[in-house]
Amino acid sequence: MQKILVLGAGKSATDLIHYLLDHANEHDWQVIVGDLDIELATQKVGGHSRGQAIFYDVMDAELTDRLVSEVDVVASVLPAKLHYLVAEACIKHKKHIVTPSYISSRDKAMEADFRNNGLLFMGEMGLDPGIDHMSVMKMLDEVRHLGGKVQAIRSFTGALIAPESDTNPWHYKFTWAPMNVVLAGQGTAQYLKNGRPKYIPYNRLFELTETYQVEGVGAFEAYANRDSILYLDKYNIPEVPTFIRGTLRQKGYCDAWNAFVKLGWTDNTFPIINSEKLTYNDLVEAFLPTDASEDSRSLDIRMAEFLDVAPDSELMDQMRWLGIFDHIQIQKPKATPAVILHDLLIEKWKLDENDKDMIVMIHLFDYELNGQMHRRQSTMVMKGKDRDNTAISATVGFPMAIMVKLILTGKVSHLSGIHMPIMKEVYEPCLKELAELGVHFHEAEITDNMSSEIHIS
Amino acid sequence: MQKILVLGAGKSATDLIHYLLDHANEHDWQVIVGDLDIELATQKVGGHSRGQAIFYDVMDAELTDRLVSEVDVVASVLPAKLHYLVAEACIKHKKHIVTPSYISSRDKAMEADFRNNGLLFMGEMGLDPGIDHMSVMKMLDEVRHLGGKVQAIRSFTGALIAPESDTNPWHYKFTWAPMNVVLAGQGTAQYLKNGRPKYIPYNRLFELTETYQVEGVGAFEAYANRDSILYLDKYNIPEVPTFIRGTLRQKGYCDAWNAFVKLGWTDNTFPIINSEKLTYNDLVEAFLPTDASEDSRSLDIRMAEFLDVAPDSELMDQMRWLGIFDHIQIQKPKATPAVILHDLLIEKWKLDENDKDMIVMIHLFDYELNGQMHRRQSTMVMKGKDRDNTAISATVGFPMAIMVKLILTGKVSHLSGIHMPIMKEVYEPCLKELAELGVHFHEAEITDNMSSEIHIS
Repeated sequence: MQKILVLGAGKSATDLIHYLLDHANEHDWQVIVGDLDIELATQKVGGHSRGQAIFYDVMDAELTDRLVSEVDVVASVLPAKLHYLVAEACIKHKKHIVTPSYISSRDKAMEADFRNNGLLFMGEMGLDPGIDHMSVMKMLDEVRHLGGKVQAIRSFTGALIAPESDTNPWHYKFTWAPMNVVLAGQGTAQYLKNGRPKYIPYNRLFELTETYQVEGVGAFEAYANRDSILYLDKYNIPEVPTFIRGTLRQKGYCDAWNAFVKLGWTDNTFPIINSEKLTYNDLVEAFLPTDASEDSRSLDIRMAEFLDVAPDSELMDQMRWLGIFDHIQIQKPKATPAVILHDLLIEKWKLDENDKDMIVMIHLFDYELNGQMHRRQSTMVMKGKDRDNTAISATVGFPMAIMVKLILTGKVSHLSGIHMPIMKEVYEPCLKELAELGVHFHEAEITDNMSSEIHIS
Repeated sequence: MQKILVLGAGKSATDLIHYLLDHANEHDWQVIVGDLDIELATQKVGGHSRGQAIFYDVMDAELTDRLVSEVDVVASVLPAKLHYLVAEACIKHKKHIVTPSYISSRDKAMEADFRNNGLLFMGEMGLDPGIDHMSVMKMLDEVRHLGGKVQAIRSFTGALIAPESDTNPWHYKFTWAPMNVVLAGQGTAQYLKNGRPKYIPYNRLFELTETYQVEGVGAFEAYANRDSILYLDKYNIPEVPTFIRGTLRQKGYCDAWNAFVKLGWTDNTFPIINSEKLTYNDLVEAFLPTDASEDSRSLDIRMAEFLDVAPDSELMDQMRWLGIFDHIQIQKPKATPAVILHDLLIEKWKLDENDKDMIVMIHLFDYELNGQMHRRQSTMVMKGKDRDNTAISATVGFPMAIMVKLILTGKVSHLSGIHMPIMKEVYEPCLKELAELGVHFHEAEITDNMSSEIHIS
């Protein structure tokens, strides 16, 4: 019997745990699920005879050490910064580990230890990062196999709300870490265009969007992710002249979000004075350049003027719908603008019980073949079942689970060191099984519309 | 004989050292000047019989300990973050210390040690912070003495260039820490207006300026400093409903600087890829949303369009004068945008040998007296003599030197603990002597123009 240790039983672990338990009899696995909240772990294991729920605290080094020593592979959905604590135990006891998080510099420092011990640390094995890497690499290999020369790669992912659950003027609800959404994009975005790095500062990021239409599910806006250029090296494609990774939002979101950037409500670095005594209305007033003592018009009218939009515009409907002009008390003391916005949004953008989330991933490849330019588009749309069985959980958990299976069935025993899933022996079986599980890419060649070059501008 | 230890012999120490040496015979002082660059220290001491130049490295704790033990008072113009190393030695050997820097939280932690030992740590004893505190407190006390109720305080300082040395379209040259100018204002500015905190994010800071005319020297724009509200407590004036501190620039500067903010050139958090191979022209291109492959017009024309100004506007003249459209190589590797901008500006904005710098400080007090509103304005303009004998050096060094004298002549022996110069027994003699040294405030009552309320908007 092989033993798998799953660390973390939260939202993103649901499908990981279920997949492993569903395949446990077939492969003679035992699945140990550890979480600070043992009830949550127990609930996820659901009384399965091959499952076991235990209390787990990553800060208990002795416990980590003992648990890791007793299993064959670890699948960690702990916070990204904490994987290294488990990875250290993996080196000591010669175990493999799979995570869905960006590989940190702290992880990276253990590369030689994993490699020299013949161990695999597979990071970035979730949705984004994860499925994005695998599907891009598959397209790359296909185009290269045809003899095509890749000129441009545009790769966008959004964790969104399904059209049938889209019930607010923002066309958005939180399906994933809310604070990450509030702080998204701070700094300067970097991407490659025609062989040259391009830079977009935060104050223009949400203005510089490009719109993509996806049949059946609507129109999406993409804004550039933090550092796309890093991935040219990671994908080993220094020759590709245009490369951008980005985030998708339903149309109408980015303009409205940019209003918060302009207003200053996404700053997380200082507390608002007496925040607990203010109303949202007061807070808008505090950030507007003029105030009621100088201009007797209502706050929303002055806000519209500040934003240079019509008072009856969609953007102002979005603002009014959030209640930012209401005389409702913020209550939380010493809150930063970003925290206040976060707290408001988690109320307004929360999922209803039957709401379905939706993942949309779009890759666009422009390539030259026999002197002609071609465009290949690959699109993945996946909807969740309800608030608990989300597309996020499936797209993060299934790749991890499949990776665990590949390891335990000896399919990748030649791999050692720290990796992300860009090698064919990983992405091929993984994408194949993901398609069977409903994570399916639709590919199409677009040859008739190459004159309208898509660009971020 | 009393001994004074001056730590740091750089630009801002010149007048401090000269004042102390000039008064050394009269008071029977010896002045020891320490610097990493002993030649610089020797030059500043200038062979004076009561002066001594020595090598000093603040990282040498033993040296600090020995030097502090041998003197009566320390005047430190070291970098602000390093004062605490000297202050610790001051506690040990029971000595007083004077600095021109903002009192740091590390300094503040030593408050009880200074107080319990009857020692004085006088911080913020330079220009700004320093003279600004003293002159505001003087006006406050005067208005209160009249029976006036202060309704608004606006306090602005600029370290600028004298009109006769204003030879470029920016009307600005570096007379003080250049990197601080490049990074000025990042974050969110906070001030108080009509009893309520107001906030200005960086992306709007240089747009929200107010213009002030100062007779004889021109028009100045003020933008809000980081956190004005802090000073309501420090000045002990919680009852004042409008309070703002700000920075002055010659008219035309802020709009043009805002172009760099919008472009993204003030970001100091990431390196430009291959910066050493790029030209300034390339770097503008890299930050513009469109590029030459899509728009064949010249770069400056596209920049003007991006900034929404006319190609022949003053702002575009300022940009062209800096050479940012030129094909000149940046050369420095791994440079952040802010470092690249800094390096360009220190070339372009450097002082010529005979250039005179100029300090402008403006305080505006609105107060109610006998049911009527009044405005009192206090203005200080001081010009330097040349590139080496600057107004900055005088306005930073003289207050420190006078403070040292007040300590050594026993005028403030009742003061202990960590302070800034807001007490009458300090600001009164200090401002009086500063006026004799040419740092003179001109006060005027403005009663005819109260209808045009000055505000930042």
